[in-house]
Amino acid sequence: MLLCRFDADRLGLVEGDRVRDVTPALGILPAHTYPLPRFDPLIANLDAVMRCIRDLLPGAPSVPLADVSLLSPVANPGKIIAAPVNYLKHLDEARNDAQIHHRNQVGEIQRVGVFLKATSSLVGQDEGVAVKHADRRNDHEAEVVVVIGKRGRDIPAARAGEYIAGYCVGLDMTTRGPEERSLRKSIDSYTVLGPWLATPDEVGDPGNLGFWLTVNGQPRQRANTRDLVLGIPQLIELASSFYTLHPGDLLFTGTPEGVGPVEPGDVIEVEVERVGRMVVSVRSAAGEPA
Amino acid sequence: MLLCRFDADRLGLVEGDRVRDVTPALGILPAHTYPLPRFDPLIANLDAVMRCIRDLLPGAPSVPLADVSLLSPVANPGKIIAAPVNYLKHLDEARNDAQIHHRNQVGEIQRVGVFLKATSSLVGQDEGVAVKHADRRNDHEAEVVVVIGKRGRDIPAARAGEYIAGYCVGLDMTTRGPEERSLRKSIDSYTVLGPWLATPDEVGDPGNLGFWLTVNGQPRQRANTRDLVLGIPQLIELASSFYTLHPGDLLFTGTPEGVGPVEPGDVIEVEVERVGRMVVSVRSAAGEPA
Repeated sequence: MLLCRFDADRLGLVEGDRVRDVTPALGILPAHTYPLPRFDPLIANLDAVMRCIRDLLPGAPSVPLADVSLLSPVANPGKIIAAPVNYLKHLDEARNDAQIHHRNQVGEIQRVGVFLKATSSLVGQDEGVAVKHADRRNDHEAEVVVVIGKRGRDIPAARAGEYIAGYCVGLDMTTRGPEERSLRKSIDSYTVLGPWLATPDEVGDPGNLGFWLTVNGQPRQRANTRDLVLGIPQLIELASSFYTLHPGDLLFTGTPEGVGPVEPGDVIEVEVERVGRMVVSVRSAAGEPA
Repeated sequence: MLLCRFDADRLGLVEGDRVRDVTPALGILPAHTYPLPRFDPLIANLDAVMRCIRDLLPGAPSVPLADVSLLSPVANPGKIIAAPVNYLKHLDEARNDAQIHHRNQVGEIQRVGVFLKATSSLVGQDEGVAVKHADRRNDHEAEVVVVIGKRGRDIPAARAGEYIAGYCVGLDMTTRGPEERSLRKSIDSYTVLGPWLATPDEVGDPGNLGFWLTVNGQPRQRANTRDLVLGIPQLIELASSFYTLHPGDLLFTGTPEGVGPVEPGDVIEVEVERVGRMVVSVRSAAGEPA
């Protein structure tokens, strides 16, 4: 299934260039009183929601995909985990460009591990990216994103697949500067997730996913997850050796070489094979209300 | 007011060595359906909850503080922000101890900014700390914590006070190693918040708060927030110049010199003047279920 969230928190099933509106399936999710769960309720109940969607499909209305506004397919991730320099050619690129490394060491992922992005930075493709520090370089970073499906800690790589709910296309927007990644990459709208959630049966082997990014139609990044330094199972093993993963946690798996700046007015496209294609507009954050 | 959460998600008002049970005040908080808010509902409605508490107090039952189990006073922070090396003597200490810096650069906070800790690492004092990587140094770091009270971005330091809901005692537990802070400091139970939320009227000037930490009764850290490199208003200005702050976001303001390792069986005490004293037991995570 390709599951999207659209317009005013509606739930959709993507079929070609149409979206079937299956919002009533959200009715099976419980209401929550304080304190709230620290995981995503939709992903935690995904099997039941998908059963409900199948029941609804015969009568589900259909709208053109082009007419809907796509939100982040995961609304409430407890944490957004991201892999730095997880393609060797991007490590070389980062070490050779002072505008990227800012006189900081750029360590191998085996040494520096994974980092966090703020959940307040998360948007869907049609919310777009608002460039905040226009005096700095604000770079696109295309990534394949894993959505964690169930709670787990100390997950061995060999069993990592059991913990995956699906895959998304990700844009890990990055302001360059000397600060730690968890600050520079957490600006509002700097984590774009979309266009929908592709369940594992749609995707097949996540270790062989081609993906590419263009800016205004010009090719910038092109890679395949087979070139990841730490593959998806190894990333899940690494992250879960530090903390518990929860349903809806997002894992941005790293960006390949070719990162570069974008400006207000640019249009970024990112496509991941067998997952989907995301189109993201860039604007300025200047003057926008908090 | 000194507001605590205790036992099975009960709400309490601390008066000396007693807790007045004011749980019915939580009844004014709305129930939420998916998608959930990305902020803390209690903190977002704190004024209304406090009015309700005042109405309830005449008939509120009282229990001994010693008999209750204290939870994190903020249940649903959207993000946990933390200041690295924000006391000069701790910067010296970190640069001079290879077991702390692990051959990484230790930059000034003006350069590296603030970082994130995973919300999945958050516990209250009576949940205790479970040491995970026992083969590494696992250090105590005492901190004064600010709880953000309302949504804001690009907050000037001069107006930061308007965005503060209160203060807590914090323990920023840290596994030493080469990885980024946002990973090493995000292990389950490595963010202890307690013992309760002290509202600003209880605390007065947050720029002059003495605090200290002991391990098994032995003094380890002692400092005052007047020695912060970036004070609380400056930290709020810095963080909000990158991302929007939301009600319930936590700001760990940094630890002073004297950090050091703890082991299972240790008892850590941290006290912040005019806020409270927190007692935290250390155990091993080995063998605990995920």
